Amino acid sequence: MIQVSVIGSGNIAHHLLKAFGKTSEVKVVQVFARSIKSIETVLPNTEIIDNWSQLKSVDVIIIAVSDDAIEMVSQQIPLENHLVVHTSGSVGVSALDSKNRRGVFYPLQTFSKSKALDYRLVPMCIEATNPADYKTLETVAKSISDYCYNVNSEQRKALHTAAVFVCNFTNHLYQIGHEICEANQLPFDILKPLIQETAQKIITLSPAEAQTGPAKRNDTQTINKHLAFLTDENQKEIYKLLTKSIIDHGKKL
Amino acid sequence: MIQVSVIGSGNIAHHLLKAFGKTSEVKVVQVFARSIKSIETVLPNTEIIDNWSQLKSVDVIIIAVSDDAIEMVSQQIPLENHLVVHTSGSVGVSALDSKNRRGVFYPLQTFSKSKALDYRLVPMCIEATNPADYKTLETVAKSISDYCYNVNSEQRKALHTAAVFVCNFTNHLYQIGHEICEANQLPFDILKPLIQETAQKIITLSPAEAQTGPAKRNDTQTINKHLAFLTDENQKEIYKLLTKSIIDHGKKL
Repeated sequence: MIQVSVIGSGNIAHHLLKAFGKTSEVKVVQVFARSIKSIETVLPNTEIIDNWSQLKSVDVIIIAVSDDAIEMVSQQIPLENHLVVHTSGSVGVSALDSKNRRGVFYPLQTFSKSKALDYRLVPMCIEATNPADYKTLETVAKSISDYCYNVNSEQRKALHTAAVFVCNFTNHLYQIGHEICEANQLPFDILKPLIQETAQKIITLSPAEAQTGPAKRNDTQTINKHLAFLTDENQKEIYKLLTKSIIDHGKKL
Repeated sequence: MIQVSVIGSGNIAHHLLKAFGKTSEVKVVQVFARSIKSIETVLPNTEIIDNWSQLKSVDVIIIAVSDDAIEMVSQQIPLENHLVVHTSGSVGVSALDSKNRRGVFYPLQTFSKSKALDYRLVPMCIEATNPADYKTLETVAKSISDYCYNVNSEQRKALHTAAVFVCNFTNHLYQIGHEICEANQLPFDILKPLIQETAQKIITLSPAEAQTGPAKRNDTQTINKHLAFLTDENQKEIYKLLTKSIIDHGKKL
C-alpha cells in the first residue's frame, strides 16, 4: 500500500481525498490544512495537521494548493529526498523545491465542492523526474482513475490552455445563453438538452464534423439577423469574433 | 390520429420522420423530396412525392427546408386554408404564405444525420396564429417529445441566437481545444471528460455558479502564461475577449 499525504483543503484536495477514500491501494496518512475546520470530509485513520513539524515521512506528498503558493509550500516541507508533487495544470515541475524528488499529479477536470463527480473518469496527467517515481505516481493515479496519461510540463501547459477554451470559455457561453433567455422570458431549461447534445456529439464525431449553424453555412442573412437582435455590445463582439473564426476555419478545409 | 406531411429531406426532416415513426398518434401521409433518393429512411405507408400536384390534404403540412427556401415553398403549396408550419428558429411565422393557416414547429436541437438522438428530450417550440391550430401542434409535438414550449416569433429569435452561443460557438471552442492537443502530440480524448462534466454541471448549477478558471479568479499570472503560450493570433484574440468578458461579468456581481 502506498502512503500519501495531502497538503491543502480546497476543491482539488477535497475531491482527491474523496477518491482516495474509495481505494485500498493508497492510504492517506496526513492532511495539512491551514484551517483544520475547512476539511469537510475527513477520512478515517487520517490525521489532520496544521504545523509543518508534524509532517511524517510518506511515499508521496501531494501539494494541492493554489498555483502561486506551490513554490513556497514546497520550500516549507521539512523533509528531503521525498517524492513531492503538485496538482496544477499551469505550473512547471521545476517550481518545486529541488531538495525533494519532484513530480506532477494533475487531474484534468473542473471541480466544484457542491457537485459530486465520478473520479474514475478524470484523466490523470502525471510527470516525474525519475522512472521509479513515475511508476509510483502511476500506481496512485490508476487506483483512483481509469485514465492515466504521461504528460510533460510543456504539454501540460498546452492542455491547461485548451481546458480554458473547452471548459471555462464554454461555461461562459452558457452564461450568455442564460442571459439571453432571461431577457426574453424564456426558461434556461429549454437550452439544456442542446448543451448536453453538443457535448455528447464530440464523443463520436470530431468537432470539425460536428460543427453546425449559420457561420458554418456562411449564412450571412441569419448572422445579420442575430447581430441586429443583440443589443449588448459585449455579446455582439463575441458573436462577431467566433463567427469569423468558424468561417475562416471553413475556408481552410 | 393526426395526418401530417413533411416537405424536405435534410437533417431536420430526417430526424423528424424517425421520431414520427415511433408514435401511433401521428401518421405521415406524404414526404415531398426534390430528389426522392435523398430520403434514406422511408416510413411504411408513407408516399414519397416530388411534384406539387400530388400533395394531398392533411391536418398539418410541415415545411422542413432551409431558411431561405421557406417562403417560396409555402407559396408553391397548391392548397388553401390548411395548417402549414415551418421548422426554423430564425424565420418569423409571417414568412409563410397567408393563403394557409400559419404556425411554427421548431425543434431546438443540433442535428447531424450521422448521430442518433433521443427525440423525446428535444424541446419543441410551437407557435400558431389560432388556438385550435396551436392545440393540434401541441398534440403532434407531445407525441414525439416530453418538452413542449409556447414560443412566439420574437422569443424564438432570441432562442435561436442563444443556441448559436451554447451550441455552435461552444463546438468551435472544442475545435480549438482539438487543435491545441494536435499541435502538442496529445490525444483529444484527454479533454472529453472535462467537456462532458462542464455540460453536466449546469444541469444542477447556474452557469454563474459553475464558472471556474483563471479569468474567474482574475489570475493575471496564469492568463499571461496562456497568452504567451498561444502562437495562433485568432486563438489569442478569442482568449483575450472571453477572458475580458468573464472578468467584467465578475465585477457586476
